[in-house]
This record gives sequence, structure tokens and C-alpha cells, in this order.
Amino acid sequence: MRSPQRSRPDEATVARVTLELQRRFGNRVVTSLAVRQQHAHTTTWIPAEAPDVVVFPQSTDEVAEIVRLCAAEAMPVIPFGVGTSLEGHLNAPFGGVSIDTSQMKAIVAVHPEDLDVVVQPGVTRKELNEYLRDTGLFFPIDPGADATIGGMAATRASGTNAVRYGTMKENVLALKVVGPTGEVIRTGSRARKSSAGYDLTRLFVGSEGTLGVITEITLRLAGIPEAISGGTCSFPSVKAACDAVILTIQCGLPIARIELLDEVQVRGVNAYSKLSLPETPLLLFEFHGTEAGVKEQAERFGEIAAECGGTGFRFSTDPEERSKLWQARHDVYWASLGLRPGAKGVASDVCVPISRLAECLAETKEDIERSGMIAPIAGHVGDGNFHVMPLVMMEDPAEVERTEAFMHRLVERAMRMEGTCTGEHGVGSGKMKYLKAEHGVPAIEMMKLLKRSIDPDDIMNPGKIVAV
Amino acid sequence: MRSPQRSRPDEATVARVTLELQRRFGNRVVTSLAVRQQHAHTTTWIPAEAPDVVVFPQSTDEVAEIVRLCAAEAMPVIPFGVGTSLEGHLNAPFGGVSIDTSQMKAIVAVHPEDLDVVVQPGVTRKELNEYLRDTGLFFPIDPGADATIGGMAATRASGTNAVRYGTMKENVLALKVVGPTGEVIRTGSRARKSSAGYDLTRLFVGSEGTLGVITEITLRLAGIPEAISGGTCSFPSVKAACDAVILTIQCGLPIARIELLDEVQVRGVNAYSKLSLPETPLLLFEFHGTEAGVKEQAERFGEIAAECGGTGFRFSTDPEERSKLWQARHDVYWASLGLRPGAKGVASDVCVPISRLAECLAETKEDIERSGMIAPIAGHVGDGNFHVMPLVMMEDPAEVERTEAFMHRLVERAMRMEGTCTGEHGVGSGKMKYLKAEHGVPAIEMMKLLKRSIDPDDIMNPGKIVAV
Repeated sequence: MRSPQRSRPDEATVARVTLELQRRFGNRVVTSLAVRQQHAHTTTWIPAEAPDVVVFPQSTDEVAEIVRLCAAEAMPVIPFGVGTSLEGHLNAPFGGVSIDTSQMKAIVAVHPEDLDVVVQPGVTRKELNEYLRDTGLFFPIDPGADATIGGMAATRASGTNAVRYGTMKENVLALKVVGPTGEVIRTGSRARKSSAGYDLTRLFVGSEGTLGVITEITLRLAGIPEAISGGTCSFPSVKAACDAVILTIQCGLPIARIELLDEVQVRGVNAYSKLSLPETPLLLFEFHGTEAGVKEQAERFGEIAAECGGTGFRFSTDPEERSKLWQARHDVYWASLGLRPGAKGVASDVCVPISRLAECLAETKEDIERSGMIAPIAGHVGDGNFHVMPLVMMEDPAEVERTEAFMHRLVERAMRMEGTCTGEHGVGSGKMKYLKAEHGVPAIEMMKLLKRSIDPDDIMNPGKIVAV
Repeated sequence: MRSPQRSRPDEATVARVTLELQRRFGNRVVTSLAVRQQHAHTTTWIPAEAPDVVVFPQSTDEVAEIVRLCAAEAMPVIPFGVGTSLEGHLNAPFGGVSIDTSQMKAIVAVHPEDLDVVVQPGVTRKELNEYLRDTGLFFPIDPGADATIGGMAATRASGTNAVRYGTMKENVLALKVVGPTGEVIRTGSRARKSSAGYDLTRLFVGSEGTLGVITEITLRLAGIPEAISGGTCSFPSVKAACDAVILTIQCGLPIARIELLDEVQVRGVNAYSKLSLPETPLLLFEFHGTEAGVKEQAERFGEIAAECGGTGFRFSTDPEERSKLWQARHDVYWASLGLRPGAKGVASDVCVPISRLAECLAETKEDIERSGMIAPIAGHVGDGNFHVMPLVMMEDPAEVERTEAFMHRLVERAMRMEGTCTGEHGVGSGKMKYLKAEHGVPAIEMMKLLKRSIDPDDIMNPGKIVAV
């Protein structure tokens, strides 16, 4: 049976495992401090905790070998993609072996007729779409960073297209996973749907490496739309913008993207991306379909926006104009940093039912005011998901403390409004403290039961999601 | 610890539990043979196995009470909706208590702005849509029968709208579940998406009552489209029809429904529904959107159909004409029975990647020929899911045996083509024998591990999905 409290393997164990790995994988095993630290690098302010050793497998069988070796010594295993996670997912609080999937970049199979693709976990979303370009298909899930498919599956990632195309939950058809004893588990099939037993695929999607290492992913793809129309519309208030979003979704307009930037964010975007958008709350939107369809949909959206007080409605089917706009959207992180040189941007990720979005945003903006912070807001408002990014001078402890208190209030506000502490970033170690309040004790107990049953020795990314 | 092999509680135990239930729930506890047999009634040829007692709770707390009482005596618990399941899900091979949810029909809350609704499990899909009519919203999942929402969640049901709106997997936002010790577990929230821990909602969706009793469901709703266009197109062969489906989906046309009827099925439909459709393979289709959008989409589909040899393309936005057509589609079960008076229709439910659909259908039709059976085919072909319904004289053992052999070949064929033994009906006891071949040993072992860990005494719908 596993120990009640996970502990760090002693030096002798680490040395033994490292030697074994080196025997087997030679120079694909790295122990240099620089590389180990890089593998614990996270974009949060959670202190980095480096693994003891980093190994670069190339196949499912190699991952299985590594896990078996670690299992025999109760050595922690931390899967690594490209290190874009935001909640300390990649930290090694108990040391262990970081399994770097950057040499697992094979596109195993493309099935254009079935609109699916089978990939190794190290492929990034941009690499995949680059590869797919000539097929007329694309993979729509687009978190800000160019994350790996493995990491995106592990964190249940989404992005700006989720309102139309869903998240990784909806777009992973099947998985190959190496479990805690090194067994290779196949979940799901290429059939579009199935009722054949427990949904193991969804059990591993979002499990953040705590139940197994994802080594192969079968993804749904979408046809590249014949036509795309997109544009912007300004609003007198965040509330007015949210009303337009609610109406749009309620009347069944098949919007592909609808993003909110608050006036602070727009100011940053104007400066960074050399745009001259009116510095009031702004909606960016996009429709995917046929020529006539997207034109009509954009016009319908224009009417709805006007009803809600929207002004300066502009839309275009010109690819260049659109891509400039969406580039600006994807650059908000850098644009925000420009608002306060020298500051660090701290990510947040709450999601609420859209009926509460305006209220949640209003309270949050008041809170920002009161706290005297600079904190631009950008949101996937079609899903009720938004990111506030306080800009913090990390060398000022008082300011850091104020920011921590603000982040805490933000999450509690979202949960009070029937929302979640994380819409797409995941739990890692950063959000663990909120899970009980969000899910309640029985659900947390069930999550712990799943973790203990599947990984009794707690070797899979220990100290994340539910500490057991 | 649980016994290696589940056994039937002895008569004394049954008597004790029944008495306790009667003390607590009075005349909401029924032990009459007729009622018990009705609760084991299934539409398969799997012999009915009646529970020992039937109880009619009205709330989550009452279900929790019943489960605690059963848990104390290791008494099986079988949740019951309206008895439309097709694989013996409701049988009581070890006796036990059937929990009939027909008195749990409350619509707990409708949130039009968020496009979601919270319901008790006994509400049927038609009752729900009746209730929603004035909100401008609807619940799109439509299995043939007027099943309960609880049953649909438990079996991961879908239907004709799945190609556009997804299955229960995509449309259940949150659940309230009574676990094997009587604890009440809340899974998910009303947020559209979340990355906050393991996906307990998807663990229970499709678990067929083997992990807990679903007592409340939060569902996504869709806006009733402003316009709907639908129609039919005939094809020289099933292959030609499948090619049209693949092209339609590949070019990203947002089709809402696309159903195939083979020539045998069309013959039955013509006779039963007084239609005069050409008796060749037929596609029924429907688009949802704006006036101009659906017209354009139907026309685009007409072009694609023509490229593939489709003839007699007709579409209409007239509600009456459409509803007559879809009523005929939903009546295929009765229409089929008309093809062979006195015969029983045996349901099947394979699903394959659409690239293999034409091949799978062709081999299946040859097999039907060789077996000298009458077996109409109707399919949700946009998902690669189809139903062959052999019409069998049950009093002829040789014919029954031939049919069983055919059903076996059908499933093996689908699995050989990377498909699944059940696209939407579920496993129950009827499909258990295929799970190992479909998922492989490691996945089945993980399913058994989940079942054993969550329900160590095997009281939740024992003998279904994975026997442990």
C-alpha cells in the first residue's frame, strides 16, 4: 500500500534510476541543472521545482519502459510538452523524472474522409495545422500559446474557437496512455460516437498527467470553412457587450469566435499592435460558413450589437484584415505587459454562466479599481470564460500580497456565480486550494478515490489536482 | 471486501429490505409480479429478469435513503426510467430494488440566457421540449423512443441530431448522483467549460447505473433555429449515398440531420406512412440556421448529391412537409415490422468511421442476402452509426440461431473497421461479450478497477457493462 504522505525518493534511488535510464537511453537522458530547471519553468509565480532527471523518449514503448522503471522505485513521473502550462503543472515537488515528449512529433495518420488525425503528444497545434494545410482540414482548438497536443489534452485546453468547435473534451476521439504500472491503455476508437462502456478517454483528458502519460491522441478535425467573416464592434460598457453576446448565442447564430477586450486591454492592444480601436469595451467576432451565410450572419450580429448600444460595427471577409485583428488578439499578453513596463503578468482563468458574466466582470473591475491595480481583461465571452491579468512588480511584497488577495476574491466571486476556478488552464498545484469549495467534499473524495485506485503509489505527477 | 462473484441476496434479506422500504415509503413500494416484470421488460430478446421490489422515490434524498438501505444489506439497485433501453440494462440478474424515477419529473430550473436547464431524471425528452416550447430553446438529443433524460444520460444516448448537436456526452453539463454508499455527489457546474479536475460528469454519463444513480441533470439547450430546410434525395446505391455524406461533412456544411434508409427500409416506410418514395437508398437531410443560410446549404447539398449520382432531390422549408417526413423516419420500427407480420424486430447499433461506412453496409447487405433474412437498415450516417433490424420469427429456433450468428458477424465487422459495438444504445448485458475485443485487456481492466473501487460491494446495477 502507498504511504499516506508522498515523500521524495532518497539520493541512492535517484542515482539508481538515473543510471538505469542512462544505460537504456544514453544521451537522451539529461541531468544538467539548466535543463532540469527549464523543465520546471512555469509562467506562474509558483516557485519552480526542478525534476531530478529529464528523459526524451521517442515512442509509446519507450515511455512504458521509463514508467515501469520509475514504478519499481516509486519514482515520480512528470510528463512535459513545451512548458506553456500556467499553474505549476510541470513542477516536481517530490523530484522525479520529467518525460519530455519533444521527440514524439510524428503525425501517425491523417484520415481526411473521417476528419480525424492521429498524432504523438509532442506535436504542437501550429505544427499540426501547418501539416494539415493541404487537406482542407484544420484543428480548431487554439490556446494562446503554441502548446503541444499532449499538453492540451492533459489540461483540457480550449481557446477562442471553443464556442463553435468545443474544447479538447469534445475533440479528442481516442487516446493511447501509459498507466502507472507501465501498461499501455487504448481508450476510445475512431468511431464518432460510442456507448461501449466507461468513458476512459474523458477520464484522461484533463487529468494533467496524474493518472497516466498520454502517448498518442486521435483528434477530430474540422473542414476549413469556405468563407469567414469577422470584425469588431465597440460598446459603451462591458454589460452592453455581454448582452450582445447572450442575444447572439440565444438566437442560435453559429458564431465561431466572440472575444471581449475591456477598455484597458484595448489601450494596450492599440499601443502594441499599432491599431486605433476606440478605447471602450470591444467585441471581436468571426463567423465560419458559406459566402452568403457568413455575410448574413455578420449582418444579423450587427443588428443585435446595435440593439445593445454597439457602435463602429465593422466586418470584413478579407483574410489580411482579419488576421491582423486576430494577431492583435493573440498578442494581448505582450500588449498588456506594455501597459506597465517591468511588471509581470499574472494569469487568471475563471468561467461563469454567461448570464452572470456582466455582473462578474463589473464586480471584478470595481475590485481592480479599489485595489489600485492595472489589470487588463480579455475573455472568451461566448463561453463565459475570461482572463484578468494583473500587472505586478514582483519585488514589491505588499503589491504581490494585494494581488494574491485579489486573485482569491476573483475565484470566490466566480464560484459564487456557479462558475469554475479554471475554464481552460487546469488545476496544477496553483488551483488545488479551490477544488473543494467548487466541487464539494463528495466529488473531491471521488476524485481522490480515482487517483488512489489508479495510481496507488502516487508516482504520476504527484502533488497536482487532488493531493492524496 | 466484496465477494469475487456477486450472488443473489437470500429471501430473508429481501424480506427485511422490503419491509424497511415499506415502512419508509408506504404504497410507493410495489412487489406485485406484474409491476416487477414490467420493470425488467426490455425490447431485446434477452430474457427478462425481474427485480424483487420496485420503489418510487421523489427526491435525491429519498434515492440516497434507498441506496443506504440497500448498501447495508448488499442489495442490488437498478435505476429505471421508462424502460426503453435495448440491451437488458434494466434486468435484475441478482434480484434487488428497481428505483423507478417516474415520480421525479420536476423541471428544477430553466436558464434561458445560459441555454441550460436542470431536470430530475424522470422527465422524458418530449416532456422537456414541450415545457421549453415558449422559451425559443430546445433539447436536441432525440433517440427513437421518448426516453427519460436520466436514462439517456446513463446510456450516453444520441439520435438524428447528433451530427450537429452532439450526444449526451456533449450535452450534459452537470449531474447530481447518489453513489453506492448513499452519498450525494455533485459533478460539474453550469459553467460552459472547466478544467477543474477529473471529469466526473463524463464518468457517470454512459455508466448505465453501475456507478451510481443519476438524480439531477443539467443540460445544454440550443436555440430553436430561425429557419429549417430539409428534404430527401435518392441514390443508385448505398455507396453513392455514403459518398454524398462524406463530401457534405468534409466541406464543412453544417448539416443538422442526415439519415440513410436502404431500399428495404424505404419499402417499409412507403407502405406504413403512405408515402411514394422511390424504393432505392434514400438520404433524409435537414439544415438549421437563417432563412438564406439554410436555403443556400440545402442547395449546396443538392449539388454534392448530384455529383454522387443522387436523383429526385427535393427540399422544403414547409414545417408540415418536413414533420411528415421525419415522423416517417421515427416510425421506421413500426414500418419495418410491417415488412414481416408476426416477426420480432431485433435492434443492432454498430458505428464505424464514415470512410468505412459504405464498405461496412455493403458487406452487411451481402450477409443479409446470404442469411436469407429480411433486415431493413436505417442509419445516422453523419456519425457512421447504423441500425440493422432483422425481422425474426422467435418461435423458429433455427432462425433465431441464424440471426444471433448474423448479429455477431455484424459487430465483428464494425470492430474490424475501427468501429464500436454500440454507437448509442449502450452495453447493458447484451453487449458485454464484445467489450474486450473492442477495447483490449488493459482498458477493460481499468474499467473493472473503476467499478470495483467506486462500488466494491457491486450493488449498483450488477452484471452490466463489466462483470466484476
